[in-house]
Amino acid sequence: MKLQTQPYKGSRDFYPIDKRLRDYIFKNWITVAERYGYESYDAPIIEPTELYRAKSGDELVGKEMYSFTDRAGRDVSIRPEMTPSVARMIAARRQEIPFPARWYSIPNLWRYQRPQRGRLREHWQLNLDIFGVKTIDAELELILLVNDIMRSFGANQKMYDIRINSRKLTALIMAEYLELDSVQSHLMIKLLDRMRKLSKDVFESEAAAIFDETNKKQGISRLKKLTSARSMGDLPEGLLSSPPIKQIQLLFTHLKENHVNNAHFDFSLVRGLDYYTDIVFEVFDLHPENNRSMFGGGRYDSLVGMFGVESIPTVGFGMGDVTVLNFIESHGLLPELYSPTDIYVISVGDVLRQSQGIAGILREEGVNVAVDISGRKLEKQIQTAVKNNIPYALFVGDKELSEERFTLKHLPSETSHKMSLARVVSTVSDYRNPSN
Amino acid sequence: MKLQTQPYKGSRDFYPIDKRLRDYIFKNWITVAERYGYESYDAPIIEPTELYRAKSGDELVGKEMYSFTDRAGRDVSIRPEMTPSVARMIAARRQEIPFPARWYSIPNLWRYQRPQRGRLREHWQLNLDIFGVKTIDAELELILLVNDIMRSFGANQKMYDIRINSRKLTALIMAEYLELDSVQSHLMIKLLDRMRKLSKDVFESEAAAIFDETNKKQGISRLKKLTSARSMGDLPEGLLSSPPIKQIQLLFTHLKENHVNNAHFDFSLVRGLDYYTDIVFEVFDLHPENNRSMFGGGRYDSLVGMFGVESIPTVGFGMGDVTVLNFIESHGLLPELYSPTDIYVISVGDVLRQSQGIAGILREEGVNVAVDISGRKLEKQIQTAVKNNIPYALFVGDKELSEERFTLKHLPSETSHKMSLARVVSTVSDYRNPSN
Repeated sequence: MKLQTQPYKGSRDFYPIDKRLRDYIFKNWITVAERYGYESYDAPIIEPTELYRAKSGDELVGKEMYSFTDRAGRDVSIRPEMTPSVARMIAARRQEIPFPARWYSIPNLWRYQRPQRGRLREHWQLNLDIFGVKTIDAELELILLVNDIMRSFGANQKMYDIRINSRKLTALIMAEYLELDSVQSHLMIKLLDRMRKLSKDVFESEAAAIFDETNKKQGISRLKKLTSARSMGDLPEGLLSSPPIKQIQLLFTHLKENHVNNAHFDFSLVRGLDYYTDIVFEVFDLHPENNRSMFGGGRYDSLVGMFGVESIPTVGFGMGDVTVLNFIESHGLLPELYSPTDIYVISVGDVLRQSQGIAGILREEGVNVAVDISGRKLEKQIQTAVKNNIPYALFVGDKELSEERFTLKHLPSETSHKMSLARVVSTVSDYRNPSN
Repeated sequence: MKLQTQPYKGSRDFYPIDKRLRDYIFKNWITVAERYGYESYDAPIIEPTELYRAKSGDELVGKEMYSFTDRAGRDVSIRPEMTPSVARMIAARRQEIPFPARWYSIPNLWRYQRPQRGRLREHWQLNLDIFGVKTIDAELELILLVNDIMRSFGANQKMYDIRINSRKLTALIMAEYLELDSVQSHLMIKLLDRMRKLSKDVFESEAAAIFDETNKKQGISRLKKLTSARSMGDLPEGLLSSPPIKQIQLLFTHLKENHVNNAHFDFSLVRGLDYYTDIVFEVFDLHPENNRSMFGGGRYDSLVGMFGVESIPTVGFGMGDVTVLNFIESHGLLPELYSPTDIYVISVGDVLRQSQGIAGILREEGVNVAVDISGRKLEKQIQTAVKNNIPYALFVGDKELSEERFTLKHLPSETSHKMSLARVVSTVSDYRNPSN
């Protein structure tokens, strides 16, 4: 039987050309996260399954996880998300960690699901959290940071918006405005979470089924008012003076001061995961052909407590590489990405040993240099450099060696100049760091 | 039941302080790999189990792998090594890839084994290969590259050596000098691979059992000659003129030309994995308390062929993070690692909003800035910066804001200066890039 060469279903091979794009996404994530003072951490990709059972819904544990038993009988899983791992790590060193702690990670995550656009079985996700801050300054910082990440990909504020709600406000609305008990509230929140995927009729009939008979008419009417609210000002007056609304308003004020003009209140935003406790937010792609929630986050103040230590106020978000890739493709923001190799050294005649020497000199100066050691014809060697999107070719032959001047060809523009090695170094360095 | 906070057995949590060290190792790997023109790739951490069964010994598949059945009944494994994946990727695009192809990756790998010093269940490993070069230039390049990686960690050539052998030479010795048949040869190679772990007596009695009775006396005597050979010159004359020896000699000549003076011939070096076909090499730690093989590689010209496509000459090696960490710890090469955060902004009085504004200005200039938004006392804020090994603290208060001059404190030396924001930017930039 011949071995298959395709990767496992729903996962990806990253050939160098694909990896450049992933590296570009990661680099923007890392640059902005560190710009805001976040530090990188990591955890093992295998965790005890009970870590997820304790936190997530049964659906995730039952159907969507890669779980198995190890050779010693431990029930383990490949992580479907990073939050339980980071909560575990924080809980383990609750006393030693200096707070506020700003942490980020870019884990590889796996979910057993039907692969579709924007959703594979494996993806990479920026996870970023701030631990130990009770005030809205934490949410403000994370949304500004998200905005800077979007900017780093070349996005402007017309390409996406940021939708904000509060779990506390949702709870207040469920109990006091819609007059639902806790079981009904839970059902209603689950329904709202699916609202965008349902027709208006289906949504309304499912909603009607949740209310008591005595409460149904008033409930449906009030629910319609809420779902049609386009800003907080459209909310009923009784709610407008509530503490959760005051918090959201404060957040909007600060966002505007910081020139974030694409943030909106969205009553229907609840986010599926159960652990959020206060402000939640999502970032939406506004492209007509890719209109969708891209990613989001919020405040979850009690997760660390699940490990039997004192809780820590936490705000965090996750942002996947597949989603970002779809976004930058839809909006025409894909950059031209060159090889990290600066120079491809091509030997003209039998001078390979000398070419390797020249490469050694250039490397000591910090230039990334590949030498063609295939012994093939000149034309083939040049083709390899062009196909790999290497910006420069350097030609080494007897004449060049005796003159100590070499032809450096800029491959994209097909322009060549003869120069000393020192000049080669400065030319390539200028190309790599145009701002210097 | 309370959830456990420790990571899965034999795996590691990387807290920011640990992750800095891992990032330091990765950064050196990446810098040197790209200096030689290698490009990064990646593959999924889950592969079909048959990929390993086809290539590796049964021992690995049977006992040491994390294998399980997915929900559709596929037999899959978490990768224990990267080579089968990269061979699969190369085979899949055999026709399109421009050769020679220089590829590297830093995969996370898992083996089910008893955790011990230098061997965990999971580790990260630099995998680097050159595809499409038949000549010894490929081996030369990889050994020079390995040497530059060791240098990047501050190692000198007295701290380690490079041991070199050839599978072709081993085959020749087995068949013609020791006069073993193919079954005996296989047993002898397995025995040599374990030689360093056995006492001299045990080695000799196990070796004696491999020879035929008629051949035993001569065989043992010749084997002793071989194992006591300290250089190629000690080998029997008949072997010295064989083509594999000529190849090894050529490699040594080129290594010396490139100032690699710590490479030696080692007849006993065979390396466990079955797929090597010619030159093999290993790097040994010479530290008296850590004397061991650290990592190695070699030529494997037929692996890609297992996918039913034409074979490609390949030379590669793998180098693990745990091994490197043990090496740099043993030799006192651990660097002082600071936070990627340049400045911790501390508010003196009720000026948080203004502090956030200052941070925004500095970030636009490329400075990594965290603002303490905890609302705690000054002393607590400074402590957080010190504990996180952040190099600078910047103090913002009403006086500073009106004067537009701020106190920048270098925390390791506890020296402070008052300066403009422009000066803050240049001070921190000089600190980050001392060479500019």
